[in-house]
Amino acid sequence: MRFVLNKAVNISNMNAGIIIIGDEILIGQVVDINSSWISREMNKIGFRTETVITVGDDGKSISDAIDRCLEVADVVFMTGGLGPTKDDITKKVICEKFGTELVLDEKVLANVAEMLGRRGIAMTENNRGQALVPATATVINNAVGTAPGIMMEVSNIPHSVPFVSTSSTGGINSHPEPVEGSIPQKLLFSMPGVPFEMHYLMEREIIPLIKKHYNLKPVFHKTLLLTGIAESILAEKISDWEDSLAKNVRLAYLPAYSSIRLRLSVYQPDDTTESYINAKVEELKKIVPENIIAYEDIKLEELVGKLLKDRHCTVATAESCTGGKVASLITSVSGSSEYYKGSVVSYCNEVKADVLGVSRADLEKYGAVSSTVAEQMASGVRRLLKTDYAVATTGIAGPTGGSDEKPVGTVWIAVATPTKVVSRKYVFGKDRAINIERFAASALSMLIVEMEKEC
Amino acid sequence: MRFVLNKAVNISNMNAGIIIIGDEILIGQVVDINSSWISREMNKIGFRTETVITVGDDGKSISDAIDRCLEVADVVFMTGGLGPTKDDITKKVICEKFGTELVLDEKVLANVAEMLGRRGIAMTENNRGQALVPATATVINNAVGTAPGIMMEVSNIPHSVPFVSTSSTGGINSHPEPVEGSIPQKLLFSMPGVPFEMHYLMEREIIPLIKKHYNLKPVFHKTLLLTGIAESILAEKISDWEDSLAKNVRLAYLPAYSSIRLRLSVYQPDDTTESYINAKVEELKKIVPENIIAYEDIKLEELVGKLLKDRHCTVATAESCTGGKVASLITSVSGSSEYYKGSVVSYCNEVKADVLGVSRADLEKYGAVSSTVAEQMASGVRRLLKTDYAVATTGIAGPTGGSDEKPVGTVWIAVATPTKVVSRKYVFGKDRAINIERFAASALSMLIVEMEKEC
Repeated sequence: MRFVLNKAVNISNMNAGIIIIGDEILIGQVVDINSSWISREMNKIGFRTETVITVGDDGKSISDAIDRCLEVADVVFMTGGLGPTKDDITKKVICEKFGTELVLDEKVLANVAEMLGRRGIAMTENNRGQALVPATATVINNAVGTAPGIMMEVSNIPHSVPFVSTSSTGGINSHPEPVEGSIPQKLLFSMPGVPFEMHYLMEREIIPLIKKHYNLKPVFHKTLLLTGIAESILAEKISDWEDSLAKNVRLAYLPAYSSIRLRLSVYQPDDTTESYINAKVEELKKIVPENIIAYEDIKLEELVGKLLKDRHCTVATAESCTGGKVASLITSVSGSSEYYKGSVVSYCNEVKADVLGVSRADLEKYGAVSSTVAEQMASGVRRLLKTDYAVATTGIAGPTGGSDEKPVGTVWIAVATPTKVVSRKYVFGKDRAINIERFAASALSMLIVEMEKEC
Repeated sequence: MRFVLNKAVNISNMNAGIIIIGDEILIGQVVDINSSWISREMNKIGFRTETVITVGDDGKSISDAIDRCLEVADVVFMTGGLGPTKDDITKKVICEKFGTELVLDEKVLANVAEMLGRRGIAMTENNRGQALVPATATVINNAVGTAPGIMMEVSNIPHSVPFVSTSSTGGINSHPEPVEGSIPQKLLFSMPGVPFEMHYLMEREIIPLIKKHYNLKPVFHKTLLLTGIAESILAEKISDWEDSLAKNVRLAYLPAYSSIRLRLSVYQPDDTTESYINAKVEELKKIVPENIIAYEDIKLEELVGKLLKDRHCTVATAESCTGGKVASLITSVSGSSEYYKGSVVSYCNEVKADVLGVSRADLEKYGAVSSTVAEQMASGVRRLLKTDYAVATTGIAGPTGGSDEKPVGTVWIAVATPTKVVSRKYVFGKDRAINIERFAASALSMLIVEMEKEC
């Protein structure tokens, strides 16, 4: 082992650097969603992402980006450039950079063979190449794909530029200098760019490894889920409460479609932390009593499932403008078949009438985007699929189909419960994809609120 | 001054650099969509984005990022860090870096006053600050927001690091060295981070300005969509063809679930480019005749729509394991109501039997995940929703529910056409979310292949 662990690691100065590799990102064909995911997850364990650098499938650019990140970060994550095709050169760069060579890893090869075998695909020379890893790397097994993760422990950093910056604006906010005589041991991870594979490696292997390596104290987080309030209004309402928080508490607003998560983080927690935070949450409940729908970091679709399981109830959906998005969110949760029976996506009036039993006269009279039709869709699917609850959406996602009276972004959402049917109108923006997301999230929020009222 | 304008600008070497500024991006709260948009637009006019660097609202980081980008790019775009709040310091950094100072621009001030006036908001000291611009900058008026765009013409670059890189991996793919004695003139743009405002400034002002400044030729791209072949097998099959491509052609593999895009790019197109690329595409057709499903950059769900519109046909979906994902993909396409009538998401056997008319005896005999049930689901929804085509999925997304005979990752997909019903089994991996994506993409691919066979 070439390194000595720097024991005096100060958690608040732990930085991450991220390198996103891929020509497809630099020509704008694919949007990078990996860096925000990594930043969010690392933030939870006390790391601040210092920089994200996106480069092409090009050796010098990758090499330079590694240098830049090692200058400012303790842990560097690279995604992409590990696939079986010729343009994937990350591993070669790592070898050149850290003076090692590619060797065949039998365990990785067996994994590649198994992954391909399951899909009935023959192993090629390119696939064998995926089992080549830098000799000095720690291999991180990828159980959900053929490209392994790689960890390099970095102490002797071959900078192509001097470590001490001489930038003329260095005074504005300079980085901590390395402690004299100590060698900051850094970690460099290379992962596949496919988001699901990267998530798997991070969650199962890499984050636990980093926690252990740096002996990180857990960061105390308390996350609340709120709905039915705009971020700016929430910020104003809780401004005094926010000012009253102890200095070591960090508050983050994490707005999503139709909900806001408020996250309280304490980076140096002690025995009093939990009771202090609970007391502050009790204060908050008095300020926004109707908006808090959960006291944990949970997705809307997970909360729907939890509430239904608690009640031993079932739900169905009837979707027009959301076109299956609500169903898709609900069924993204493992075990959802326990409480979710199905959906009728009625993308035309004929299906609304024939399958869901919406009155043709009402469709004619009020139009498909109306309170009446939304309520009949919810009741209709609840009856057809024999469930306790149902939620229905009908609206105009855009970009066309709007009118003065019902502009693009208008949606009616109805919830049918064992005792009643309620509906509500929302008006959002002009972007189709964002509207579908907002409509679907609003449907889940409204279902949650109505379920919570029911008991 | 170290540089003079290099008159012999070589278009193939025209590079862009992008700097995304904002703490909200580095904590993963907001996904950066500006860099992909800028890259796409710049690519169309012949620029290759060389790097994207994301940094926080921090002077030194911004300053360093400017240095890095000016090293490798001819034009540098910065978004963010121009708002009225205290953490927005981009303009200050520009002043320090380029030895100038902030001055009040009366035209910008008038614009800020007018923008605020329209929304009935009073002008604050912070808002007045938005009218301060670096004295040597060219101001780019923002008619849709309060923060102006700024252009700096950069000749004297105060590098904090030497311009000539000494990286050990420089041999892999080195950047063009500046021509001896000539000094490239570079442009630096700073824009607001709000996507809508940034698009406005780029489209109306900045892109026309760059085109004129560099007198540019467009880049030639040809994208092919393939299905039914693994990336590694494709790479092996077309390896000789790939080697035969002219030196100025770049080939990129862009794999997605159940499909791969192959993109050929020519950065110095001339009159012969199109016919040359078409001839190479004809050669490729002979190597993988059954796998190319489109000759343009199109998503599977868009291609489904295109084929249906061409045939004046309609489609419906019946989904079990994909839980609305296929419907959701199809309806993500604007105008899909022309050909998409709806879906029955049958997440339990009861709905498969009661709504779709699947035989209870067959459900019992073959199980829900079977060729028979998939085919009856497809026929059933085609009959129920009165469409020309239908596609059905039934499988085990996981993580639970698998058996030795039908492991997690197994899916039966059936397509019903006006003349027949066909089904096929696929086996993927263990991850629920990935399986759902793969199942849905495979359903779209199979629908496309069957539609293309039909005529």
